[in-house]
Amino acid sequence: MKLSSAPVRRPVSDVQVVSFDGSTTRRRPDRLATEEPMEIRVAGPGQEPEPFAVAMRTPGNDFELAAGLCLTDGLIAGPDDLDSIAYCLGADHEQMFNVVTVRLRTRVADDVRHRRYLSNSSCGICGKAALEEIEVRCAVVGEGPPVAASVLGSLPELLGQHQRVFDQTGGLHAAARFAADGTLRATREDIGRHNALDKLIGHALLERALPLADDILLVSGRLSFELVQKAAVAGFPVLCAVSAPSSLAVATAEQMGQTIVGFLRDGRFNVYSHPERVDVNA
Amino acid sequence: MKLSSAPVRRPVSDVQVVSFDGSTTRRRPDRLATEEPMEIRVAGPGQEPEPFAVAMRTPGNDFELAAGLCLTDGLIAGPDDLDSIAYCLGADHEQMFNVVTVRLRTRVADDVRHRRYLSNSSCGICGKAALEEIEVRCAVVGEGPPVAASVLGSLPELLGQHQRVFDQTGGLHAAARFAADGTLRATREDIGRHNALDKLIGHALLERALPLADDILLVSGRLSFELVQKAAVAGFPVLCAVSAPSSLAVATAEQMGQTIVGFLRDGRFNVYSHPERVDVNA
Repeated sequence: MKLSSAPVRRPVSDVQVVSFDGSTTRRRPDRLATEEPMEIRVAGPGQEPEPFAVAMRTPGNDFELAAGLCLTDGLIAGPDDLDSIAYCLGADHEQMFNVVTVRLRTRVADDVRHRRYLSNSSCGICGKAALEEIEVRCAVVGEGPPVAASVLGSLPELLGQHQRVFDQTGGLHAAARFAADGTLRATREDIGRHNALDKLIGHALLERALPLADDILLVSGRLSFELVQKAAVAGFPVLCAVSAPSSLAVATAEQMGQTIVGFLRDGRFNVYSHPERVDVNA
Repeated sequence: MKLSSAPVRRPVSDVQVVSFDGSTTRRRPDRLATEEPMEIRVAGPGQEPEPFAVAMRTPGNDFELAAGLCLTDGLIAGPDDLDSIAYCLGADHEQMFNVVTVRLRTRVADDVRHRRYLSNSSCGICGKAALEEIEVRCAVVGEGPPVAASVLGSLPELLGQHQRVFDQTGGLHAAARFAADGTLRATREDIGRHNALDKLIGHALLERALPLADDILLVSGRLSFELVQKAAVAGFPVLCAVSAPSSLAVATAEQMGQTIVGFLRDGRFNVYSHPERVDVNA
């Protein structure tokens, strides 16, 4: 699998703001999380690249995002389906780093865009069709190692220490994965919660580390159905969130055999599904 | 414009959790924000309904969500384009409240799904095409009334008093609109930040209150490009967020003539674009 060299993009943007502290104003420089569109195009051997998806994302780890989204959207099953990932070579330098072309080892169906729409719809429509599709696509969520409550309690601080861009901007989501003993394995940030997880999964895919059958996922915000779905495709047995899960996230994890831990803060948490993996005495 | 009677859906779901307080565990009931898919189908006179979009949403104000999304996605220009909004009458009672059919007064192009994809892509690709499209579609963002800093400072607490579901679940986004003197005009909640704003805009559309040329928008989280885009279509001159805007949100608002106020907390805030509307001495 070839990766064209990725430029270093700035995940933060400098701006001037008028700051009001309750009584006085002053102009001062500030930094915002960068948000830019990235189009992902896909092509098989001998095919012209076709638009597959557009993500409003924070630049950085763009190839991981492309790889992760292709996996979690069901376009590929693993790293062997990938031939290369590269920025589009346009005449306009400003735009080329916002268009990524993913070349696959096998031909892409002509109706890939149509298929993606249908896939997203059928996911959405009744849950059942979506779950059946995920169960086919996903790594089997195995038993996974037992996880100590004390380890779970330590994860948010570990994540916080690595949220570099958030520190500067206060505006990014983060997703991280840990070993069962609490060792941080990887973390990714993005203005979109889905993107942060797709980058984390794409990184593991490119490192040939999937399925993540022994890893704990932690997201900085809330857990929705779509995040659980992506985590299932990557094989995560334990999903943690600093904030609340949704009703459908819990129902999905229950059926997929995943443990959901929510409101993980200050050493406290709630377990919403499959509590058998959590050892509260350790 | 006809609306079929909407059933009262529960925006919260009851679950059982294992709660760990740092030393002991107990099983207890808890409440989560409900997340369910809603498919929106559209049809003109004599046409069969075609899928237009799927939103993972919190049930409630579903017709407003459908109307708002049709407007902010550019399918309709105003309430006169709508004929009726109704739940799909399927044999399966469980599913019918997750499928909403929007009937329009004019025929829908056969490629509406394709068009929606292209629309989303072109939005995404370079910003410029998107901005041009928004400028065509949106209500002209007028000068709007001056807004006192003291009024801005009071808005988050007013919103908090009306976040009913959030109080129960800790898991919802909110969007609200206020008059320039700080009077709350409407508020909507949803598990998706886009949905909360689309419901708020859809409500105004169905009340024939658009454009919202004198109103202040407040969102409970962050401001992304897509939220600024939706707010521009509704005509909001002032957009406030409790948290950070993105770089592209600020650039878009700058071009559209909108004022962005971020980090609006405890009477303090930053103004990122068009500060001329904010009166810091009042």
